[in-house]
Amino acid sequence: MVTITNHMPTAELQALDAAHHMHPFSANTELGREGVRVITRAKGVWLTDSEGEEILDGMAGLWCVNIGYGREELAEVAARQMRELPYYNTFFKTTHVPVIALAQKLAELAPGDLNHVFFSSGGSDANDTNIRLVRTYWQNKGQPDRNVIISRKNAYHGSSVGSSSLGGMAGMHAQGGIIPNIHHINQPNWWAEGGDMTPAEFGLARARELEEAILELGQDRVAAFIAEPVQGAGGVIVAPDTYWPEIQRICDKFGILLIADEVICGFGRTGNWFGSQTLGIRPHIMTVAKGMSSGYVPIGASIICDEVAEVIGMEEFNHGYTYSGHPVAAAVALENLRILEEEKIIDHVRDVAAPYLKQKWESLLVHPLVGEAKIVGMMGSIALTPDKGTRAKFAAEAGTVGYICRERCFKNNVIMRHVGDRMIISPPLVITPAEIDEMFVRIHKSLDEAHAEILERGLFRSAA
Amino acid sequence: MVTITNHMPTAELQALDAAHHMHPFSANTELGREGVRVITRAKGVWLTDSEGEEILDGMAGLWCVNIGYGREELAEVAARQMRELPYYNTFFKTTHVPVIALAQKLAELAPGDLNHVFFSSGGSDANDTNIRLVRTYWQNKGQPDRNVIISRKNAYHGSSVGSSSLGGMAGMHAQGGIIPNIHHINQPNWWAEGGDMTPAEFGLARARELEEAILELGQDRVAAFIAEPVQGAGGVIVAPDTYWPEIQRICDKFGILLIADEVICGFGRTGNWFGSQTLGIRPHIMTVAKGMSSGYVPIGASIICDEVAEVIGMEEFNHGYTYSGHPVAAAVALENLRILEEEKIIDHVRDVAAPYLKQKWESLLVHPLVGEAKIVGMMGSIALTPDKGTRAKFAAEAGTVGYICRERCFKNNVIMRHVGDRMIISPPLVITPAEIDEMFVRIHKSLDEAHAEILERGLFRSAA
Repeated sequence: MVTITNHMPTAELQALDAAHHMHPFSANTELGREGVRVITRAKGVWLTDSEGEEILDGMAGLWCVNIGYGREELAEVAARQMRELPYYNTFFKTTHVPVIALAQKLAELAPGDLNHVFFSSGGSDANDTNIRLVRTYWQNKGQPDRNVIISRKNAYHGSSVGSSSLGGMAGMHAQGGIIPNIHHINQPNWWAEGGDMTPAEFGLARARELEEAILELGQDRVAAFIAEPVQGAGGVIVAPDTYWPEIQRICDKFGILLIADEVICGFGRTGNWFGSQTLGIRPHIMTVAKGMSSGYVPIGASIICDEVAEVIGMEEFNHGYTYSGHPVAAAVALENLRILEEEKIIDHVRDVAAPYLKQKWESLLVHPLVGEAKIVGMMGSIALTPDKGTRAKFAAEAGTVGYICRERCFKNNVIMRHVGDRMIISPPLVITPAEIDEMFVRIHKSLDEAHAEILERGLFRSAA
Repeated sequence: MVTITNHMPTAELQALDAAHHMHPFSANTELGREGVRVITRAKGVWLTDSEGEEILDGMAGLWCVNIGYGREELAEVAARQMRELPYYNTFFKTTHVPVIALAQKLAELAPGDLNHVFFSSGGSDANDTNIRLVRTYWQNKGQPDRNVIISRKNAYHGSSVGSSSLGGMAGMHAQGGIIPNIHHINQPNWWAEGGDMTPAEFGLARARELEEAILELGQDRVAAFIAEPVQGAGGVIVAPDTYWPEIQRICDKFGILLIADEVICGFGRTGNWFGSQTLGIRPHIMTVAKGMSSGYVPIGASIICDEVAEVIGMEEFNHGYTYSGHPVAAAVALENLRILEEEKIIDHVRDVAAPYLKQKWESLLVHPLVGEAKIVGMMGSIALTPDKGTRAKFAAEAGTVGYICRERCFKNNVIMRHVGDRMIISPPLVITPAEIDEMFVRIHKSLDEAHAEILERGLFRSAA
């Protein structure tokens, strides 16, 4: 067996990667030519690459490493569980202690009567499960035609055929198609789409599109509405304050199920255990993943209210994944929740990290490229613009300027992501004020360099 | 934080499970009343439950624990990788050593020019990825209308909306619906559906349904054919020898992509690294999961041939999972492959375990309930019948007798599964002849008890 180690020269690792590893959301031929960066280890909020560079991770991996990298306790729990019971299924009248304990803990943490947990291996799977849950629920209640799920354009709910159909990403639909009976309304993105309305007016108008869609589709055909409390991959889009109360009113009025996709917002990201608590939403089902295990092991789940669980439980539910409730994943997730709870990491977010990050984040508004700075807890976005007053888009293709900015960050060893011409962050929740200071030194440098490059290349121009 | 441990009384664990844990493929209300069995630890081929009962696992968890339970090496690798780099994404021009090493190893093990790996968290995800890969491949080649995938009735390809549509399980389709542009032909299940044909005739006839479907759908509309080399969850259906050569000829003739779903057959289950090698199939894409990590951690992948990877690589592929190429999952899978290889476990299967299992398995044919015994490597099935000569079905609802038999096995501490009225096994590959002997003591006892119960309840009767 060929042994490939961290000690191989970077170029050799890159060549092997290009030869055999197909990267997600990438143009792989071009990527292979360019050569990828090899991350070799990480600790706290810091990554190290194969050249010894230290990188401040402003994205917590992919919105997931909430407790930070390198926690010994999780390694120990994983090893202990693997020794004891590395796998067993829960399909045929069997269970095991880690899955019981995690289900109980999630029920305890989740708001309201969200007391029942169906496990999966990640957010995509869990949202796929939600499609099944919702349709089976109405079928078991004798309303099989009530099978349309309403979602939002520019939502992200996963990458499987089902979950990407729930999502509203046009580029994904163009390649994968979209399944029937999913309907998308517009997103509450005031910066990009608010026109002459105030944010408050716009929030109400966009929420009322849900009501219009229900009436248009037929009240007896709409099964559920799904949304992220704060859109994540869509660009950390924070809805105006008027939005969520109106959405809740409409869901209540028409008796449709409300699914809160908490894959990003859950487990402290917004300053509470769940984004639904921060935004005042009362969901029937919550999708969770990422922060549930801080990404140390793949796991996801649907957390389900009493009434939906009872109706599903009446009949055989013909659905499940081999790794539903995986014992090692469950044990690691449980230890992660223990750390979040006992180390009062969500208090740290609410009382220390988030207020300080907000202050620094909003100070970016003085930068010539930045038109809007939005932040909820530990997830923030800035809109890049050539003209703050008019909220103008760049003349260059959408994403060109954002990409330049991201590449500058990457070179300056701070991870930010761009979504079109928005820049976003979502750092580990354990980040300290001193680390936030260091992050902003790098962000300022990167924005300044990007600004200079954009000017030099004649890209600092508004679309007609 | 409430601490739930293995030391709680079984009844308390069962009550917590019923209150919070929704089981896959179960009627949860009824299951909660009945009470589930709590598996607490496992070693080799043996499970232990919370009452101290020792259970011989004839299903390797869920077709996955190929190297057996309790391997210390995997626990150590998991812990080491978690300490070093517990997570990082591969979306934005980054990679890491475990994912490179695993991709390289899979390319080395996979037959032909299957040299490129796209990772996921399990078989459902990987087959979802395959739908995307296939459609994007033809789209990039300028044939966007070539988007129909042909599969088989009673196939199992996963439980997400996309992968369950690929699969041919009617009960799943009834609850979850089915996505457009998937077409199902009949399965090569001679015992149940062969009528008056010889197995050889029937194998050819069923293979030729693929050609008929292509001609009917339109040659320029069919993108791919997907199949398990040996149907697993459908009941370990082994096609007649004439089947696969004809399928291969038809795929070649029409230039459609052939996807071999190796989630169960891969990594030694059939006596070779892959079922495609055992059955003489040359796939363009292989779906893998389960045995790749022996189930110790959730991971799946699509292994892709040069030409398909090249065409996909031309453009951005808008698809991927947070946990695609998860470093801990990759490291654990790699260690599992090392053990499979260095301990020559596949040689053990081919030379020792499979021949002995086959001999014992086929000896079940003398049992009054058993009409057919099929086995390939370490996956076998028997058909239960009230009349061997006519291959008759039972008068009772399909699955009634199989369920009785499974419950007897469960009580006698041997895990077998029933699929309708077929009983199936798929033990860990490391099972020894002495353990096979013990397994058969329990299987014989269970079949005898089931037979007695069936006679007593008047169920030993043929359908009209």
